[in-house]
Amino acid sequence: MRVKNWLWFSDFFSSSEVHLHGFTEHLLEKTTRFQDIDIVDTPFFGRMLIIDGDVQSSEKDEFIYHEAMVHPAMLLHPHPRRVLIMGGGEGATAREVLKHKTVEELYMVDIDEDMIAAAREFLISWHQGAFDDPRMHLIFDDARKVVENFENGSLNVVISDLTEPFEMGPSFPLFTKQFAQVVYDKLDDQGVYVVQSSILRPLIYTMHAAIRRTLQAVFPVVRSYAVYVESFDTPWSFIIASKGKDPMDWTSEELHGAIRERISGELKMYDAESHWHMFYLPKNIREAIDEPGPILDEEHPIYLTRKGDILPYK
Amino acid sequence: MRVKNWLWFSDFFSSSEVHLHGFTEHLLEKTTRFQDIDIVDTPFFGRMLIIDGDVQSSEKDEFIYHEAMVHPAMLLHPHPRRVLIMGGGEGATAREVLKHKTVEELYMVDIDEDMIAAAREFLISWHQGAFDDPRMHLIFDDARKVVENFENGSLNVVISDLTEPFEMGPSFPLFTKQFAQVVYDKLDDQGVYVVQSSILRPLIYTMHAAIRRTLQAVFPVVRSYAVYVESFDTPWSFIIASKGKDPMDWTSEELHGAIRERISGELKMYDAESHWHMFYLPKNIREAIDEPGPILDEEHPIYLTRKGDILPYK
Amino acid sequence: MRVKNWLWFSDFFSSSEVHLHGFTEHLLEKTTRFQDIDIVDTPFFGRMLIIDGDVQSSEKDEFIYHEAMVHPAMLLHPHPRRVLIMGGGEGATAREVLKHKTVEELYMVDIDEDMIAAAREFLISWHQGAFDDPRMHLIFDDARKVVENFENGSLNVVISDLTEPFEMGPSFPLFTKQFAQVVYDKLDDQGVYVVQSSILRPLIYTMHAAIRRTLQAVFPVVRSYAVYVESFDTPWSFIIASKGKDPMDWTSEELHGAIRERISGELKMYDAESHWHMFYLPKNIREAIDEPGPILDEEHPIYLTRKGDILPYK
Amino acid sequence: MRVKNWLWFSDFFSSSEVHLHGFTEHLLEKTTRFQDIDIVDTPFFGRMLIIDGDVQSSEKDEFIYHEAMVHPAMLLHPHPRRVLIMGGGEGATAREVLKHKTVEELYMVDIDEDMIAAAREFLISWHQGAFDDPRMHLIFDDARKVVENFENGSLNVVISDLTEPFEMGPSFPLFTKQFAQVVYDKLDDQGVYVVQSSILRPLIYTMHAAIRRTLQAVFPVVRSYAVYVESFDTPWSFIIASKGKDPMDWTSEELHGAIRERISGELKMYDAESHWHMFYLPKNIREAIDEPGPILDEEHPIYLTRKGDILPYK
Repeated sequence: MRVKNWLWFSDFFSSSEVHLHGFTEHLLEKTTRFQDIDIVDTPFFGRMLIIDGDVQSSEKDEFIYHEAMVHPAMLLHPHPRRVLIMGGGEGATAREVLKHKTVEELYMVDIDEDMIAAAREFLISWHQGAFDDPRMHLIFDDARKVVENFENGSLNVVISDLTEPFEMGPSFPLFTKQFAQVVYDKLDDQGVYVVQSSILRPLIYTMHAAIRRTLQAVFPVVRSYAVYVESFDTPWSFIIASKGKDPMDWTSEELHGAIRERISGELKMYDAESHWHMFYLPKNIREAIDEPGPILDEEHPIYLTRKGDILPYK
Repeated sequence: MRVKNWLWFSDFFSSSEVHLHGFTEHLLEKTTRFQDIDIVDTPFFGRMLIIDGDVQSSEKDEFIYHEAMVHPAMLLHPHPRRVLIMGGGEGATAREVLKHKTVEELYMVDIDEDMIAAAREFLISWHQGAFDDPRMHLIFDDARKVVENFENGSLNVVISDLTEPFEMGPSFPLFTKQFAQVVYDKLDDQGVYVVQSSILRPLIYTMHAAIRRTLQAVFPVVRSYAVYVESFDTPWSFIIASKGKDPMDWTSEELHGAIRERISGELKMYDAESHWHMFYLPKNIREAIDEPGPILDEEHPIYLTRKGDILPYK
Repeated sequence: MRVKNWLWFSDFFSSSEVHLHGFTEHLLEKTTRFQDIDIVDTPFFGRMLIIDGDVQSSEKDEFIYHEAMVHPAMLLHPHPRRVLIMGGGEGATAREVLKHKTVEELYMVDIDEDMIAAAREFLISWHQGAFDDPRMHLIFDDARKVVENFENGSLNVVISDLTEPFEMGPSFPLFTKQFAQVVYDKLDDQGVYVVQSSILRPLIYTMHAAIRRTLQAVFPVVRSYAVYVESFDTPWSFIIASKGKDPMDWTSEELHGAIRERISGELKMYDAESHWHMFYLPKNIREAIDEPGPILDEEHPIYLTRKGDILPYK
Repeated sequence: MRVKNWLWFSDFFSSSEVHLHGFTEHLLEKTTRFQDIDIVDTPFFGRMLIIDGDVQSSEKDEFIYHEAMVHPAMLLHPHPRRVLIMGGGEGATAREVLKHKTVEELYMVDIDEDMIAAAREFLISWHQGAFDDPRMHLIFDDARKVVENFENGSLNVVISDLTEPFEMGPSFPLFTKQFAQVVYDKLDDQGVYVVQSSILRPLIYTMHAAIRRTLQAVFPVVRSYAVYVESFDTPWSFIIASKGKDPMDWTSEELHGAIRERISGELKMYDAESHWHMFYLPKNIREAIDEPGPILDEEHPIYLTRKGDILPYK
């Protein structure tokens, strides 16, 4: 049995911060119409999905990201029947949504059909058959167009699992105030919108703060939360924007009860204590993300760099 | 103005996980009787202290580590007058202790006089003059000997800011059940012992769990907590072992009040919400650190590798 | 058009010397019965073949290695009709041999059929159809067995393009004095044996010297030569062991004439001046490779490390 | 005895080619008025001098560079009494010149007094006392001014050991046709000018070719040569521009005789065979450096990138 130690994937955090991950097998390398997809096997994190050079998730710890993204939002709604996911190509976000007994229709919109084909073949422990669940409606199209076609008030939970719009990336229109208003309109009165909101480190938080300010311009309840994802070497953040209940209004007992009643199967990361861990953010983080700054606005686009600078666009 | 981009420090997390930090100035490189000390300036984290090749702390985020280490333990004691720090050569642990108005005597024991000399010269923003505070008693000696010489019940808070005993490192005797019993005896009835307890990641937690089990063998109240330190790329953990109050017994209001009354100056990271963030650990972490395993025992030493393996010693 | 800059191949020269080559496409990754084969595209060297983590050759400079390996030996024989290559899976060694108008039969023996299949598909600019030349006899078998089956005196030139036996690698039996004697016997009176003989740097030369001493124990004329191969970042060496003519006995005019008459097509690297460049080695190199030491002997195997140490085997 | 393995120096050959050299001690790090100087100790190459992030020379193989730079030029002149070195701050170029028994006056001009101070303290095995030889005249000034002050015909050998003018570096005026003419005038009728002429690899040769064309515009005899320097991972090149004898006109016997008679002490790398090795360049290299292109001209400055591109300046 040979041990390969000559193939590396580099994750650049800045020009002076580089994380090297060794890999032993390069299972897929595909340039689709929308992105570069690499799937590799690593000694430490198991299989890893890399998109455009950024780690998306790893076999060993994807449950942390996906449970964190899905369950706080799903439980916040009293009875989520119709749920929509934007992005989430691995199928693991869908897998977690489908654990909720109330779900009747799950719409998943991803622009890149090749990504789902790759997931079907190589990321089986991620989707675990979610793509073939009878409640699943898989749509390959631009998410904005699909969301606009729903009737107002017809969705209970919307989950944004999209790559964030660094350097005016193509997802910018799905992170604007204008699009948040579209989602607001499509949600019912208790509707919940949850958005993956980028890296959130003491020294790197600008993208999160911009998404937060944008959602605050539209929704009455907006809560940031974060959890450490080991294969990212950093906490990852989400924001819940709610038309109804506030995720800080649970008691631990209520939350334990809701998890027990509404979710089938065991969760590995999320429970009431994890909820408080994620929603109680350290003081320095809270202060950083509440610094004033521009919002994401179609009419005044801004250019957010990965280093955290905000520049006017053109 | 030249920008150097050719000097790197490598932090090995495993043979297939390497983090490279660029540095621009190498201020100190010293091999003392006990350790290798490097102090460098980096574009991203400011000044960094590296001991034996491991990042110890960085200018930009050391406040997170040091506030987390000191304040939960200090506030847990109703009136900490006499405090002892083992290790903590940068002087920042002492700096935080000295913010507590109740402190009358602070004993700091470090085996390496050269480390304190380096801190005095290069780490001014860390110690901020703490070494010269009239309450400070700086002792260069073996911590075990010094602790044993205190009278029983004479200390209020003991802070262990030592490098953990990976691969039977020299600090092993200061992490054993036997030494925990010595500390227990020296503390008063409300006494609190806090121990920096290593990296705590979903996939790397063995050292933390071993320290936790060891303290549970001696103290009635033992609580693990953790906070993300960006320059480490990982959450860092601590354990409070208390003879009196449990850190989960606070209300947020009581804690806010205690911080306001008992601490002079502003804290950047720690407050009540940060407290809950740190003490509510995610479910998978709680389960991992409660797995059964051996304790650190002088009579049955074990060999803990950095990768997380536990081997019998000799 | 995206530019990938996140995939790297690391070439370890020692534990403190690492060369990183970025690659953009990973065309093949295959573990055969004998070796790990990676074929990648790089921005700088074009396509690269990597075997067991070592660069074998690159599109942009393979001509240097292959012209150096083949032409000095082929021209040294007055009329090479029957030639045998051991190894050389890319097909480029064969390509160069087949440029010689005198060649009637070319036997190429490679143990790894999967390597040749990979070369046929991905290394077209290397073999340029050589595998399908009517003079080519491709044999997938153990080279020792194949060579032994030839009649004595029936071969004119034998080319050893095998990976050298570091750390008692599987090719050890093909580098011994005993096997050199077999080759000697199979060659005619003017027969020439050329052996790729490893890296040859001022500080790394032990393998070359061991192969050289071994051939000197069998052949009357033994000459070391070397040429810099950019994708290896180092000079690469070869040894000619001749039963007849000495490669130092040419005049430049004779050599120019022989190249013109006997080779079809243009050579990019090799001519008379290149010949002298390669065969005149610097003084420090000549002294290093003439240091006394053990030979490669089936009965007293030695263990040669990549760093240059020679250890007794078991 | 600890082995450090966490400090690295990176040598960037291109954005996709990086060589990492581990170092254990950082002896000097100094930003002078002219350059950044790092001196480190490495496990493989011993002490290394790094200027502005580029390896200048290493303890283990500097003899190769310095013998190659000095002896072919010095021996080419029938009786070199007065010699001038530009640059060469380590003192090793001077050390080699002073081995020539004919030398009466050696002028060494370096703009950076701090570099020589660093060499005196840390690079003792390089200079070996050359700075204090009674024949040595050490001048800290701009080389152009100093050279212009010599009388015409008063120098026998001029040695240019300067960093080459990549990206319009400050040494550009010392590499132009105009300055070559100044040197020509200061040399006697048998005068020899030798210029370190940059990296010379099959794929990177543009700087060498530009210097070569420039010298060909002024001197009747111009010869390129090169030798592999292991700590650079590449061949390094020089050019001899002669007013008298051609370095290809030696016989090996004459050259051996000249070395024996005129040089005191033993040479480690240079002898007659090394001479032919260095001056006989491979065909592909000869063709590359004879490609047409611009010369270095004060009136039409060009911008040469490290990658090999030639751009108009401004």
